[in-house]
Amino acid sequence: MTISQSLNAIATVSLRGTLEEKLKAAAAAGFAGVEIFENDLIGSALSPRDVRAMLDDLGLACMLYQPFRDFEGLPGDLRRRAFDRARAKFDLMEELGTDRILFCSSCHPAALGERARIVDDFRELGGIAQERGIIVGYEALAWGRHVNDHRDAWAIVEAVDHPNIGIILDSYHSLSRQIPSESIRAIPGDKIAFVQLADAPLLDMDLLYWSRHFRNLPGQGGLDVAGFVAEILRTGYDGPLSLEIFNDRFRSNAARLVAEDGHRSLDYVRDAAQRLIDQPTAMPAPQPVLGCEFVEFTADGSDAARLGSSFASLGFTLVGEHRHKKVTRWRQGGVNLIVNAEPKGFASAYRATQGTSICAIGVRVKDKAAVLARAAALGIKAYSPEGRPGRMAMPALRGVGGSLIYLIDDHEVEGLWAREFDAVEMDADAIGADVRSIDHLAAVVHNDEFLSWQLYWRSLFGLEARAAQDVIDPSGLVHSQALQSADGAFRVTINASDARETLSSRFLDHGFGGGYQHVALTTDDIFATAKGLQDNGAAMLEIPANYHADLAARFDLDEVLAARMADDGVLYDEDGEGAGFWQMYSRAFDKLFFFEFVQRAKGYGGYGAPNAGVRLAAQNRFRPDAIPAATL
Amino acid sequence: MTISQSLNAIATVSLRGTLEEKLKAAAAAGFAGVEIFENDLIGSALSPRDVRAMLDDLGLACMLYQPFRDFEGLPGDLRRRAFDRARAKFDLMEELGTDRILFCSSCHPAALGERARIVDDFRELGGIAQERGIIVGYEALAWGRHVNDHRDAWAIVEAVDHPNIGIILDSYHSLSRQIPSESIRAIPGDKIAFVQLADAPLLDMDLLYWSRHFRNLPGQGGLDVAGFVAEILRTGYDGPLSLEIFNDRFRSNAARLVAEDGHRSLDYVRDAAQRLIDQPTAMPAPQPVLGCEFVEFTADGSDAARLGSSFASLGFTLVGEHRHKKVTRWRQGGVNLIVNAEPKGFASAYRATQGTSICAIGVRVKDKAAVLARAAALGIKAYSPEGRPGRMAMPALRGVGGSLIYLIDDHEVEGLWAREFDAVEMDADAIGADVRSIDHLAAVVHNDEFLSWQLYWRSLFGLEARAAQDVIDPSGLVHSQALQSADGAFRVTINASDARETLSSRFLDHGFGGGYQHVALTTDDIFATAKGLQDNGAAMLEIPANYHADLAARFDLDEVLAARMADDGVLYDEDGEGAGFWQMYSRAFDKLFFFEFVQRAKGYGGYGAPNAGVRLAAQNRFRPDAIPAATL
Repeated sequence: MTISQSLNAIATVSLRGTLEEKLKAAAAAGFAGVEIFENDLIGSALSPRDVRAMLDDLGLACMLYQPFRDFEGLPGDLRRRAFDRARAKFDLMEELGTDRILFCSSCHPAALGERARIVDDFRELGGIAQERGIIVGYEALAWGRHVNDHRDAWAIVEAVDHPNIGIILDSYHSLSRQIPSESIRAIPGDKIAFVQLADAPLLDMDLLYWSRHFRNLPGQGGLDVAGFVAEILRTGYDGPLSLEIFNDRFRSNAARLVAEDGHRSLDYVRDAAQRLIDQPTAMPAPQPVLGCEFVEFTADGSDAARLGSSFASLGFTLVGEHRHKKVTRWRQGGVNLIVNAEPKGFASAYRATQGTSICAIGVRVKDKAAVLARAAALGIKAYSPEGRPGRMAMPALRGVGGSLIYLIDDHEVEGLWAREFDAVEMDADAIGADVRSIDHLAAVVHNDEFLSWQLYWRSLFGLEARAAQDVIDPSGLVHSQALQSADGAFRVTINASDARETLSSRFLDHGFGGGYQHVALTTDDIFATAKGLQDNGAAMLEIPANYHADLAARFDLDEVLAARMADDGVLYDEDGEGAGFWQMYSRAFDKLFFFEFVQRAKGYGGYGAPNAGVRLAAQNRFRPDAIPAATL
Repeated sequence: MTISQSLNAIATVSLRGTLEEKLKAAAAAGFAGVEIFENDLIGSALSPRDVRAMLDDLGLACMLYQPFRDFEGLPGDLRRRAFDRARAKFDLMEELGTDRILFCSSCHPAALGERARIVDDFRELGGIAQERGIIVGYEALAWGRHVNDHRDAWAIVEAVDHPNIGIILDSYHSLSRQIPSESIRAIPGDKIAFVQLADAPLLDMDLLYWSRHFRNLPGQGGLDVAGFVAEILRTGYDGPLSLEIFNDRFRSNAARLVAEDGHRSLDYVRDAAQRLIDQPTAMPAPQPVLGCEFVEFTADGSDAARLGSSFASLGFTLVGEHRHKKVTRWRQGGVNLIVNAEPKGFASAYRATQGTSICAIGVRVKDKAAVLARAAALGIKAYSPEGRPGRMAMPALRGVGGSLIYLIDDHEVEGLWAREFDAVEMDADAIGADVRSIDHLAAVVHNDEFLSWQLYWRSLFGLEARAAQDVIDPSGLVHSQALQSADGAFRVTINASDARETLSSRFLDHGFGGGYQHVALTTDDIFATAKGLQDNGAAMLEIPANYHADLAARFDLDEVLAARMADDGVLYDEDGEGAGFWQMYSRAFDKLFFFEFVQRAKGYGGYGAPNAGVRLAAQNRFRPDAIPAATL
């Protein structure tokens, strides 16, 4: 009953387009096989034999035909028709060249729940299937009429006890109903006919609606798919893991993107599952990000000069110039900002399409070779400048939006700057702003890539997802997802919006790709920082008086403190345990990116979500072009 | 406690933009007042006094300030702080110039549920409010910790028994929990401090998530808002009806559109409620549409000639030419198609922006004067050609997408055609296709206007909404909503898609507005129709063999019948009672619009939703330009 290799598969329903387009995308992304979703075949002008030929050409196996609905427990003539229908589908499978079919538990209003009757139906079906060399897999739909739990499906398959009748396990159907994955241990691996995987955000809604619209890839949602797969691997099952995703957005996203992410998600979840049960894995473990060592901006000409002035006003000091390149280093506390004005190379190419922007970050890890190996296994491309293979002093990976992530071994950091940069005589009059480190990076991304970014960070570095937030922008809703390393040393927030124009998606609308939009810097004394910034003449974001009036009413703030916050444009939040969080924003550089200054107290772990709408509204005021009068 | 007029209001949260933009949109749409949503004020640079001045300038009353959260049932210091916060908000309300505030039931984890404590809190608050001349309205949030039912909120308000403490009723909070509206009869009208209205599609999900993302305007969802309002009016309440809508799409739609629809929705729901309790109303009752008398196409030059040939191939005969205009009439059974090739006037103007398309329909009603009066009361504009007031032989209304709806009194129909059209000698060789009447019209609309169209048809003509359908297009999900008159004599489906390109939204992407995309024609014998169409050489949509193979497996179809359906490209559906439905499609005219031929048996009431994906996939094959290779 098993297929002898660990393979990745995908159901055609998971991808957009015609059947031909779906198959091509699956093959291009490296899948070993597909599940043919019946509706995709029915709508196609390709005959089953044409599809088989196309699969052969593409090097794809047809691993499953699905779904067969409403088979079991039917009385009288309905039962006869169900068997006739099964025979017709077995004929079709022969033409299609697949030996496996999914029967999902019945939702038919006339279906009877009597166990013995269902067992008889499948035993009789097993006989027919055996003559045709077909394996039937029975799957418990979460909303099945009588059978909606894989434990019940297994009890039936066990009682049927026929070599051609197995069970199909689907992570969504089991985990959405909170069925303990440990229950899978009762099932012998060779009775598992197929495994389907999907994740989903944790939403409290009708299971069918949730399933049909919100499923996503393992590593994009909140279900414990790795734990589910671990229990399946423990049974000895070594057949394919296959994606069956129904997602409104995936239906209109590029099939290539979803297929590539899908392949990555399966490798990721298999690896995570293997680690849980101490099985050998195909890639090194995720290396935690120990910190963000630098943020690199690309800018040339007057923009580079203006950027330098802007950094200086924010308390940064020019401390280094690259020995051979038009690259400068600005420093404050433990934070390094790089300005790359090179006329050639990556920064220049990025600038050509994205404009003045953050083009790269550098992250510290314990073992960059392990990160590179894991990235390769996950299909994440390393950056290698054309014609200069192996010449990279610092290896880098491509991020989802095309920016780079440089990798730096923690022990190298000391020598790194001295090796490449000449020290610059420091400005004696420079005033600092008491910045200590980078708190987090915030990226604004295309809505289509919102989930891709999450998968990227979670699969590569093992970042953990926090609860998603919806933030109100004057122009629409912004979806925000924070990801962070287990110890909080590295944090990134991903933001996307459906709105046609928001501050956050403004540059997306203008044809730019998504990228880092702001850098949040840690201070231990927000008011000292505010003082330094004022003394430097930094352009800061004004926060309306109404905000501070409400703040005073909401929190029992000391009057002097409250007044000072109002004067300095400091925003405040507090969690349920009374841990506080202070925030302050610079004005945006050409409305493209900006800096945040934050102070965390008593372990506050959030990002000031209640204040995000106020910040967006304030930024909106500096954007008179934002909302064309015609749309009001 | 009552405001003496029946007024329309809207909460600022319902509209997109800055506070200034929201207020301007509300004033422009004719609202008498607004609720100021706290977050909108907090994010605004306008002081409360500035807002008051702006409201005065715009002629808007500030009818409510909201929400005040987590007031009641708090112990010790938390209680003291809640009262301090209330006092601060009372100060703010004075500056803002409003005497009414919404207190929603507490969700605070420390809030105690003891009734006597809550009553004491509100009685003490009532004293403070009285000194300030403020009315506090208490609202039961559907997800309140202890109070989540307006019957409990009323029991508290009744026990408080203070002139400055009333109840606020919100249709969403009550109807989402299926609280019977009859329970409102227990509340005296003068204890109702304010009324908030929202509708919502019937979805089974967490109340908070449903509320925050899916609310819509009365007449756009599935809640019985009219029944709720009727019970409120029965109490003698004559204060404002106010919209409080949280909807992801409204947050990015033009505020003008949402405000205008909002105003219409309140007039509509008030009228419907008044009719339920036999109160006098401000407008005539909705007139049912008795049928679609004609569909008017705009086309000139070679397009007009090609359109005529196309009609002829579909069994239509040229039967009339307009006496004074370049307008022809084509007829088959009871169906009239008009081709308007005039170089001036509405059809020409519509053609200039929309291209060759359906520019108008004519509907039969019993009393067109009543329709016009109702339309005027609902803010639906009548069409009056420039410079020719009163010269319209046939009155018309503007549809949402800009096309026209001509109104024809049923008794006029006889003479109508003879009066304006010269009869044309019929083509002796013409072959008909046994078409009897128009089954339905299908419109493809911008997603932003999907709900607007529903409100339009429901409020103006009393069309009833059927269950919404999601249909899979190769490029994305299509949302489909059918509306029909009570007797089914007039049916229209509204379709919208998030996808960047689908057949249905193709012309939207090219800058065209939304409009009617196909006309479904009724036949009593689909095979006779197929024969006629074949004999005429009509270009019909080919349906893949896979579809018919599946159909034969799914339904117990007679083999001869099944083969004939396959030969003729006929699709089939059956409802749970075995009532059948046959469908067949013409190829699209320049891929812009097309015709469907349907046969209904035994009262089948649907539209063949299970086949829509097959039709879309088939049409997609005749659209080689549809999916750029880059997006695959």
